[in-house]
Amino acid sequence: MRAETPAIPAEIEEEGNKIATERLVFFSDAVIAIAITLLALELPIPKGDTTARAWYDFHHNFGDYLAFLISFVVIANAWFAHHWLYRYVERVHRRVAGINMVWLLTIVVTPFATRVLVGDDTAFPMAFTLYAGIQAASQLTFVAIILTIRRDHLTAAEVPPRTFNRGITRSLAMAIVFLISIPLAYRSHWAFALWALNGYFGRLIGLGLDRRKSGPKT
Amino acid sequence: MRAETPAIPAEIEEEGNKIATERLVFFSDAVIAIAITLLALELPIPKGDTTARAWYDFHHNFGDYLAFLISFVVIANAWFAHHWLYRYVERVHRRVAGINMVWLLTIVVTPFATRVLVGDDTAFPMAFTLYAGIQAASQLTFVAIILTIRRDHLTAAEVPPRTFNRGITRSLAMAIVFLISIPLAYRSHWAFALWALNGYFGRLIGLGLDRRKSGPKT
Amino acid sequence: MRAETPAIPAEIEEEGNKIATERLVFFSDAVIAIAITLLALELPIPKGDTTARAWYDFHHNFGDYLAFLISFVVIANAWFAHHWLYRYVERVHRRVAGINMVWLLTIVVTPFATRVLVGDDTAFPMAFTLYAGIQAASQLTFVAIILTIRRDHLTAAEVPPRTFNRGITRSLAMAIVFLISIPLAYRSHWAFALWALNGYFGRLIGLGLDRRKSGPKT
Amino acid sequence: MRAETPAIPAEIEEEGNKIATERLVFFSDAVIAIAITLLALELPIPKGDTTARAWYDFHHNFGDYLAFLISFVVIANAWFAHHWLYRYVERVHRRVAGINMVWLLTIVVTPFATRVLVGDDTAFPMAFTLYAGIQAASQLTFVAIILTIRRDHLTAAEVPPRTFNRGITRSLAMAIVFLISIPLAYRSHWAFALWALNGYFGRLIGLGLDRRKSGPKT
Repeated sequence: MRAETPAIPAEIEEEGNKIATERLVFFSDAVIAIAITLLALELPIPKGDTTARAWYDFHHNFGDYLAFLISFVVIANAWFAHHWLYRYVERVHRRVAGINMVWLLTIVVTPFATRVLVGDDTAFPMAFTLYAGIQAASQLTFVAIILTIRRDHLTAAEVPPRTFNRGITRSLAMAIVFLISIPLAYRSHWAFALWALNGYFGRLIGLGLDRRKSGPKT
Repeated sequence: MRAETPAIPAEIEEEGNKIATERLVFFSDAVIAIAITLLALELPIPKGDTTARAWYDFHHNFGDYLAFLISFVVIANAWFAHHWLYRYVERVHRRVAGINMVWLLTIVVTPFATRVLVGDDTAFPMAFTLYAGIQAASQLTFVAIILTIRRDHLTAAEVPPRTFNRGITRSLAMAIVFLISIPLAYRSHWAFALWALNGYFGRLIGLGLDRRKSGPKT
Repeated sequence: MRAETPAIPAEIEEEGNKIATERLVFFSDAVIAIAITLLALELPIPKGDTTARAWYDFHHNFGDYLAFLISFVVIANAWFAHHWLYRYVERVHRRVAGINMVWLLTIVVTPFATRVLVGDDTAFPMAFTLYAGIQAASQLTFVAIILTIRRDHLTAAEVPPRTFNRGITRSLAMAIVFLISIPLAYRSHWAFALWALNGYFGRLIGLGLDRRKSGPKT
Repeated sequence: MRAETPAIPAEIEEEGNKIATERLVFFSDAVIAIAITLLALELPIPKGDTTARAWYDFHHNFGDYLAFLISFVVIANAWFAHHWLYRYVERVHRRVAGINMVWLLTIVVTPFATRVLVGDDTAFPMAFTLYAGIQAASQLTFVAIILTIRRDHLTAAEVPPRTFNRGITRSLAMAIVFLISIPLAYRSHWAFALWALNGYFGRLIGLGLDRRKSGPKT
């Protein structure tokens, strides 16, 4: 169509763009799916030769199960955010794929950070710092992905740039909450509570609120 | 096409719906595939320096192999149910994606519940309760997915709501059987038998019965 | 289009067929990919404080590395066969999906069978029987998939039934070789050699021979 | 369309080609995603009952974390290269699928090679040789994939053969650097530095340089 293109015709390039985007999304999905499933790999077996003792041990390990659930929600939220963002993305270039890979790195190390948080061998403030630091880095990297997509118009022409404002605000808010929680962890285990205050974990439960966005009405 | 849409044109939104549904299905498939493959990760090696002793140890571990097979069938059935359901789904919203994620959580912890059931360290009634409780929760969550899809018309317009009746009935029946089996486990190991009576595991073998549904006749 | 269809119009059913087939193929790919990657999870670390000793230990573990490679080729061949077969499949029904799931079960337990074969704790004939038995079952299940697809015309109308003859012959031949090798294992470790004689492992290397099938010529 | 085709009509064959290519790409993506996520499975937990001691242990394990990051970048780069190459591939035959499978083998063993490199039990030159040898083999196999695709015209007709020159040059350069670094490792740990000099790890950071290739301008 455009004769001045020296090497590869525009249609081929465009078809290539579509496939490249699908692969990036697919690869991200696979990495996230593996990370979220590996979380459950080291859940502690509740031990006890009577039912009462086994339940007691179950409650004793409650912190481990809770940490698993928190990380499950953290990674699930990462997937939801990615799912929302790439809904309108039409093509990707090396730069956005590179930032996306750094973001996947923060996902891949989250099961490790969970193990550190759960283990009895690591001082709490350090384990908390590692976990919250990785999550803050994850949110900031995600903001970088959104900004790159918006700046380089990687979406369909009809998608207005302000579509992404909500995602940027939300990710920035989360990054700030994770960063603020770090110094608190040196004082008290209640640093966790800050995450909850953020409504972070409320997202999964409160999904219904914005379901009108992509919902019933065609 | 519809001028009153403020932000994103309807076609883009529709294309986005299609991609979003595919990704949800894909992500679910990946999680299920990983969970079902991880099941085999801790199968006990049959030990013995003579063939006879090794086979003896193999039979000795029979309970472990059986538990693996049961969990394989349980997760395979979950996949079949998901496969059947999403066949007609055309779009997803945050709420259904959220419930789907909770459902995936029950899949992700099934290998863990299998390890508890198999281990010698946990009192049988407690291990059984954990396993059956997770499966009942899985079935009830699945019913919630079906009801949400039906209520919010997330299928093609031509798919009549009663299409889903069979799925709802089946999942509810399974949930009930799993829940009833729990108190029985405090009496006897034969609580397992109840699952079999349900014809639950007969589904995989008896697949041919309803093959006419999607079969040869175009 | 066809008024006599009571519930779901034919076009929706057909679109559903296409998606259902894609999901089955996709799910199979994911399971095979995980199984083949998990193989490498327990490769023994060559130990030694000098380079010479570490290389010596590497050679000492040669059997383990070889078993890994054999299983890699076995699972890779399973994927190639699946890849070839589903190339022309247009729809799947519950029965073929069920048999496919049993086939996936044989893939999922192959890393386990490899660990048994490699371990020093299991008498060789028993370990060999387990491995070869699983592979024979895998090949026979695969034949059952091909026969079901052919009988129920799950391919495009234009694909002649004899297309599948080569696949049936090959899988049957492999099943027979695996079954024959079992009694030999009670005599000698050279039972392995029978697999090689079959040209089984020659397939990967000799791929070029039949590349004209789907090759350069459009 | 072409009456002389004896068995399968050309359109079916072409549709089959498209699906076969997608599956190969998909399967590769899944294997790479699993390998990259498994890397993090054995990251050492930083231990210490005070924050200071835990951070000290974290720094003490720095080599392990660095090796994880190096392998993450190595596998990520493998994915980027694969992503770039298959962008224009339209069909695959058995031979290219076979070479692709050998290439995947080098990916699958990379987490293992990382564990060897990180472990204290293996003499450094041997561990380094194993790692660098696998990476050199990976790059050379990748060159073989590119050459096969170019020779057998597996791309769309409009893609000029010289499109692939850059990829061949880059992979060959990497293979050479990895091979040269091996004898150096018998002298000094600074053999690692050679990899960095190559700008190998600079690729991920310096992505922006060639983003104009598939970037903003439609």
